[in-house]
Amino acid sequence: MADTYKNSQVIKDPDDNYKTIGTRPIRHDGVDKVTGRAIYGNDVKLQGLIEGAILRSPVAHARILSIDTSVAEALPGVFAVATSADLPEAGDKIADLGEGPVNLAHLSANCLARDKVFYKGQAVAAVAASNVHVAREALELIEVEYEPLPVLTWVLDAMKEDAPILHEELRTNQMGKKGESPTNICDHLHFEQGDPDEAFEKAHLVVEKEFKTQTVHQGYIEPHVATAHWNQDGHLTIWASTQGSFSARDQTAETLALPTSKVKVIPCEIGGGFGGKIPIYLEPVAAVLSKKSGRPVKIQMTRDGVFEGTGPTPASFMRVKVGVDESGKITAAEAWLAYESGGFPGGVIGPGCMCVFSCYDIENARVDGFDVCVNKPWTKAYRAPGSTHVAFAIESVVDEIASRLEMDPIELRLLNAAKEGTKRVDGPVYPRIGLVETLEAAKNHDHYNAPLEGPWRGRGMASGFWFNIGLKSAVTAHVNNDGTVTLLEGSTDIGGTRTSIAMQLAETLGIAAEDINPKVADTDSVGYTDITGGSRVTFATGLAAIEAGKDIISQMKERAARLWECEPADVEFAEALFSRGDDSISFSDLCAKLSNTGGLITARASVDPQGFTNGFAVHICDVEVDPETGKVDILRYTALQDAGKAIHPSYVEGQLQGGSVQGIGWALNEEYLFDDEGKMLNPTMLDYRMPTALDVPMIDTVIIEVPNPSHPFGVRGVGEPPIIPPPPAIANAIKNATGLRMTELPMSPPRIFAALRNMENGSSGEQEL
Amino acid sequence: MADTYKNSQVIKDPDDNYKTIGTRPIRHDGVDKVTGRAIYGNDVKLQGLIEGAILRSPVAHARILSIDTSVAEALPGVFAVATSADLPEAGDKIADLGEGPVNLAHLSANCLARDKVFYKGQAVAAVAASNVHVAREALELIEVEYEPLPVLTWVLDAMKEDAPILHEELRTNQMGKKGESPTNICDHLHFEQGDPDEAFEKAHLVVEKEFKTQTVHQGYIEPHVATAHWNQDGHLTIWASTQGSFSARDQTAETLALPTSKVKVIPCEIGGGFGGKIPIYLEPVAAVLSKKSGRPVKIQMTRDGVFEGTGPTPASFMRVKVGVDESGKITAAEAWLAYESGGFPGGVIGPGCMCVFSCYDIENARVDGFDVCVNKPWTKAYRAPGSTHVAFAIESVVDEIASRLEMDPIELRLLNAAKEGTKRVDGPVYPRIGLVETLEAAKNHDHYNAPLEGPWRGRGMASGFWFNIGLKSAVTAHVNNDGTVTLLEGSTDIGGTRTSIAMQLAETLGIAAEDINPKVADTDSVGYTDITGGSRVTFATGLAAIEAGKDIISQMKERAARLWECEPADVEFAEALFSRGDDSISFSDLCAKLSNTGGLITARASVDPQGFTNGFAVHICDVEVDPETGKVDILRYTALQDAGKAIHPSYVEGQLQGGSVQGIGWALNEEYLFDDEGKMLNPTMLDYRMPTALDVPMIDTVIIEVPNPSHPFGVRGVGEPPIIPPPPAIANAIKNATGLRMTELPMSPPRIFAALRNMENGSSGEQEL
Repeated sequence: MADTYKNSQVIKDPDDNYKTIGTRPIRHDGVDKVTGRAIYGNDVKLQGLIEGAILRSPVAHARILSIDTSVAEALPGVFAVATSADLPEAGDKIADLGEGPVNLAHLSANCLARDKVFYKGQAVAAVAASNVHVAREALELIEVEYEPLPVLTWVLDAMKEDAPILHEELRTNQMGKKGESPTNICDHLHFEQGDPDEAFEKAHLVVEKEFKTQTVHQGYIEPHVATAHWNQDGHLTIWASTQGSFSARDQTAETLALPTSKVKVIPCEIGGGFGGKIPIYLEPVAAVLSKKSGRPVKIQMTRDGVFEGTGPTPASFMRVKVGVDESGKITAAEAWLAYESGGFPGGVIGPGCMCVFSCYDIENARVDGFDVCVNKPWTKAYRAPGSTHVAFAIESVVDEIASRLEMDPIELRLLNAAKEGTKRVDGPVYPRIGLVETLEAAKNHDHYNAPLEGPWRGRGMASGFWFNIGLKSAVTAHVNNDGTVTLLEGSTDIGGTRTSIAMQLAETLGIAAEDINPKVADTDSVGYTDITGGSRVTFATGLAAIEAGKDIISQMKERAARLWECEPADVEFAEALFSRGDDSISFSDLCAKLSNTGGLITARASVDPQGFTNGFAVHICDVEVDPETGKVDILRYTALQDAGKAIHPSYVEGQLQGGSVQGIGWALNEEYLFDDEGKMLNPTMLDYRMPTALDVPMIDTVIIEVPNPSHPFGVRGVGEPPIIPPPPAIANAIKNATGLRMTELPMSPPRIFAALRNMENGSSGEQEL
Repeated sequence: MADTYKNSQVIKDPDDNYKTIGTRPIRHDGVDKVTGRAIYGNDVKLQGLIEGAILRSPVAHARILSIDTSVAEALPGVFAVATSADLPEAGDKIADLGEGPVNLAHLSANCLARDKVFYKGQAVAAVAASNVHVAREALELIEVEYEPLPVLTWVLDAMKEDAPILHEELRTNQMGKKGESPTNICDHLHFEQGDPDEAFEKAHLVVEKEFKTQTVHQGYIEPHVATAHWNQDGHLTIWASTQGSFSARDQTAETLALPTSKVKVIPCEIGGGFGGKIPIYLEPVAAVLSKKSGRPVKIQMTRDGVFEGTGPTPASFMRVKVGVDESGKITAAEAWLAYESGGFPGGVIGPGCMCVFSCYDIENARVDGFDVCVNKPWTKAYRAPGSTHVAFAIESVVDEIASRLEMDPIELRLLNAAKEGTKRVDGPVYPRIGLVETLEAAKNHDHYNAPLEGPWRGRGMASGFWFNIGLKSAVTAHVNNDGTVTLLEGSTDIGGTRTSIAMQLAETLGIAAEDINPKVADTDSVGYTDITGGSRVTFATGLAAIEAGKDIISQMKERAARLWECEPADVEFAEALFSRGDDSISFSDLCAKLSNTGGLITARASVDPQGFTNGFAVHICDVEVDPETGKVDILRYTALQDAGKAIHPSYVEGQLQGGSVQGIGWALNEEYLFDDEGKMLNPTMLDYRMPTALDVPMIDTVIIEVPNPSHPFGVRGVGEPPIIPPPPAIANAIKNATGLRMTELPMSPPRIFAALRNMENGSSGEQEL
């Protein structure tokens, strides 16, 4: 049943009988992408366009006493200067604008600081000028008076009773009680099932460890860029590099106190997002500069602006404790998780709590999670947000248990694997999932069974979990007289979703992928569609495409019925053929007759699938550690994942490979380095060390197809799980190579080198945090 | 019941009870138009854009022996040269691509001549180069060898038995018999009812006259312009100034033998069309230049290219004969009409035949009409195509009868006016129409009853008829959470139809015009929609908007039912309020709840209204003739018209005024002047004399509202009728001012001067043709 493809394998569901789905057509936007025709944010050129630049705070925590823009405004070539005084006061309104509830005052202040700055690099003012050089020159002429405040750069420091407070007004419910005093803790979640205390007491073996991770950026190549034109008739048009044109519209509208219908977002192609291009930063700023100048304004972030001014994934502190019986069955688990939300409240502790034990069937468990404000950039989603952190912790602990029990780590996981009916500590009960199948595939994979010889070499494996969110998606489809269908989608295309959605419509209609012409439409031209994120697009927008396909079939049955003078209900449709008794007509031939039987057909669908579906990844990794430098080389890497059903296997493989490489970068090198004042020391691509093609081997992939019961074709989202297992898989491999149990990310040469020296000097091999 | 507005009056239907319809909101695209932000064809700027130019035939009739493009291709800066060899052979396929059946071989040869040229200015080759100056330089390097052929420039010459033949293969059915020998007559229509011969014999008075009109151009300010990008993936995108994005798509696709779905047309704003921007000229040429060069190519016509290379309205010869009884009742009528189709078969004789007697109830009538090829540009639609010609003839004859019977010309028309139940000679029986009401309004108008003193002054009046075609229209509507609706339309907006369509949706939903956000979409983004022409858009696309509104209401009733836990059928909708018993919720409040009751709503509608509806215009005109120069000044002008229901009265008034001014230009000055070789002598705006604001007084308007029974709001198309009455109204006024009966258009100073001299020399006052 396996598809053969270099370094990749597809393990198909035996019931699979698709025609288009599972094939690998050329992507519809391929030529535009490779010839440079595709329009990215910075390709937007409008008549009279002027350029903007952002003044960022040089300090990490301060009160703004005054801003004097008069000298900057007087500079020749400057058209407008904006500060938070140009944005409406947002009050305390909370709105869900695409990535969970957000306090609008914080959203606004993160675009242009109002009274305080909470992190170094926070936007304070902006200039629009005839070109970006004049704009940057003008930035230097803006006088801002700051009153410095104490700086917090580590989550545990910020949680101390006597810590300086970032947001005086912040009160947080803790353990069901309304918080009464100011705090930096902006969220506390608690989940519990069974009796973990008793279970720990009875356990045969309990392993408890503490872990630490640093701030890591999504690392997209394309900087944020937005162009705004605030027309004199009150309509605002935004061209943006965004993961969600509707969420960008709604966030911008709310920040500017405009009705949503006055704002149109035209999504450009996107040069990487990984969650980081869901929030808005530049859009309202470009908008007010456009309003003040009467011209369209484009702002593109500098690279240090991207690192310091956008939303990386949080640094974290985690304590995880797991108890097992003699057989290795996990009987108890506990996690205490503290994530940095950054300069404003609202981080990713929620999914952290939901994911920590989600690969296991555990009767007794407790999870406490905290989001905590510190004077660092406001953290945001990064591919499976919050899950990679906890996987590093739990998968290291489980590996340690396997090692102490002298069990194969996959066998231990199979013994404890979550499966249909498993109830997670945060509540949900799993429907059919594919973790066991994926672990079995790993166990049987050549990589896992191949010999690995030589000193300083080791093999590790780990699992990872992520849910697909559902949310709203809409499409419109126009049937053409030549048997093709134009498909308008609201989902911005990051990972090839034009094609993966088109293929689902093609399968529904029984036609070729090439006969669907998918277009990503602006917010005026298609129904409301939530963000491209949460591994949801191929799942949820795919559902919308299937529904639109059914609408097309239903309307075309009416036309066939008109031709055959029968009832529409008497017309059958199968394999691109409409039939009734001996009459039949192909989809394509009926398309040619639409024009004269009532006109061509438009179909539309809006879906809002409820609940989550579930994706699991298992990775295997071989490393070699250089004891002279602490550098870790990846020798071989295999990513296995339950894709439910791989619509376009090449894109699934691309997601597995890309996610793995991001996880490898996080595992080995990537981190924000801060000084004591909260200044980032490495805000450049040279100093913030991301893996290049030279740093990683070919990532081998195995797609396991265990159909998702809540999608007609069984699709599960695949974008996020592959980033999760690399840190623990590599940590477990390093342990096997060196005896070192690394508990802090990244496992960079200096940290490995120091830990090796400590171990030589007689310490336990446990990394000191 | 009259609305007061400077120089204008609206006579409303007494049953009228609309909220939005009939008001005068600011047009939705107003700011973009007045600030220069609106994107016209020449504003399209693409990365790597190159520019094209067209080589046109210097002779009016010739065989092309050879074309050598090698020297031109070698010129530095030239990227591609195209001739008809680059277009696929079209064979004999006839297709209806937006304005009636067209022979694809002729359409193609009119874009790039294949073996022969049929008129001076026909496109022969094209060049794309780094800029238009290089392209024009290269045109001069293309060597074309022509074998000259005899030239025909007058319809009656071309109908002679021994006339040289333009199209050797042309055979035409005449009087039901299949033509066997070559001919220049490309169409012969014959309509007859009653017994006209007997009726003429019995008539009290018979008046018969011959009339002649010259070739006249639509005179839009914006030249034709098209940009094409033929992508390497086979998809062709066209940015065009066109009256029909779908017809431009289909014509281009057929000409290039591409499936329609491979071609996307993005309609730009349009700087005037009046029928002349329905056909394609540049689109396939820019496309093949793009394919050959691998770059986007823009071609804009020169002004002489527009005059000589596009489709004006035909010159014509007409003989009209009318018989009446003693009371003035018309008992018999006969017309013999010959229109020039120009260099290719296919003109506007059809509507000429249908319109000639359409203002009258005549029992016995006969019409013969001929379209005839001559060596002049291929004639195309111009505002009420074919109707202005025949109105000049019939309305002059009827005026003459009134004069001979000493009857008031309006009374004579009222006595004979077409009304509900009148059967036209070409077949249709009128439903409710408004001619009588419009004549009555004219009779009672201050202008008609005001004294007109002084020598060389006279007053005239005339009627005119045009049908609205129905055809296909589609819209898509997206309901926004703030109570507004975004409306995607396939109809390109020439006369303010964004607003006139939006207002119909607003009326349906009970909301304000400003709460609809209309957008003209490209051919991939909205359902198939026929041309903007035939006075159809406010009528037919308006119907689509009403249907989409009903779809919105129906979907929102389901949501209200969900809120109230009842059946959708129990929910009522009236005046923007959904209700059931004591429960009620406003449209806007329910919009805010859509997101959480199943998602926002998309509605769509495709309509294909069958048959025609009917519009009537009556104009009154005062002139003063300068006997020294023959110049005619318009002293006062009033245009009255049955609009059915004026959706936005200001736009209706604008149509009445603009159409009147075009008719005045045609009446008094506009004509193509040709030499014996068929070369146009005046292909510039200086020499082709169109009226300026200094040439015409304020055109006063009266809108009469007699609802159209085939539209829910009673809309009749209004764009075309106002061009029809000016030539006869002015001719009748000149008769009353001078005693001269002018029977040739234009009634320019040289013609009037000559006719006055003839009359002084004792001739009858009848112009000599």
